[in-house]
Amino acid sequence: MEQRLSLISLGVKDMANSRAFYEKLGWVASASSTADVTFFQLGGLILGLYGLGALAAEAGQSPGSGFDGITLAHNARSKAEVDTLLAEAKAAGGQILKPAEEVFWGGYSGYFADPDNHAWEIAWNPFFPIADDGTISMPD
Amino acid sequence: MEQRLSLISLGVKDMANSRAFYEKLGWVASASSTADVTFFQLGGLILGLYGLGALAAEAGQSPGSGFDGITLAHNARSKAEVDTLLAEAKAAGGQILKPAEEVFWGGYSGYFADPDNHAWEIAWNPFFPIADDGTISMPD
Repeated sequence: MEQRLSLISLGVKDMANSRAFYEKLGWVASASSTADVTFFQLGGLILGLYGLGALAAEAGQSPGSGFDGITLAHNARSKAEVDTLLAEAKAAGGQILKPAEEVFWGGYSGYFADPDNHAWEIAWNPFFPIADDGTISMPD
Repeated sequence: MEQRLSLISLGVKDMANSRAFYEKLGWVASASSTADVTFFQLGGLILGLYGLGALAAEAGQSPGSGFDGITLAHNARSKAEVDTLLAEAKAAGGQILKPAEEVFWGGYSGYFADPDNHAWEIAWNPFFPIADDGTISMPD
């Protein structure tokens, strides 16, 4: 697995309120944001705000069951690499939270938990290009 | 607050085991790592593994009390900026978890929680330089 991070997703209870908080700090949300997700480009990675329940379900977890309320994502360069990286995580002692599958937003992703139950998504996302240096960016 | 992230810290129960997991994925820990913290340089940011209890205490939280087990850090360019950013976070509706103070590792830092209790550290760290583009790096 390349030594890089693509996205951090924070679970939120009230999207408008949480988005407004970060905007009050001076941050500008990406035009890729929707009613269900707010994206902020942070240098070469992306911070997303998602509904807490939706985020937990995505990661095959339930809120309150030790779920952090935060997920980390490593975007792969191909669908095949998603499968490879999840297999590597399992072989290293990680727990597969959700096998890779086609997902509603048009990508392909699965989740593993590290030894401390921190949830990592391994995703192929054709809409967020990965540069040679591993940074990712959203379309303008 | 500049729109960038400096560090992500994951709380761990068994440092050797958790460090070994990421190393099995092919990651190489920084020479700045110690018995108490393992650092991985991920492009322009740093992922750190810390003891869960120590991380919670750092952030003025206790494990199990809704603490994520993860903290995010935004490194400021000066001590004065730490104070400014914490005041901005408070004015935006954030909760101060720990006022800024001199810390044992030689920096100056405080914590706030966003509306969903995600903990952010605002830190001045003279040992991890911040580049003009906002990325940070550890000494070799």
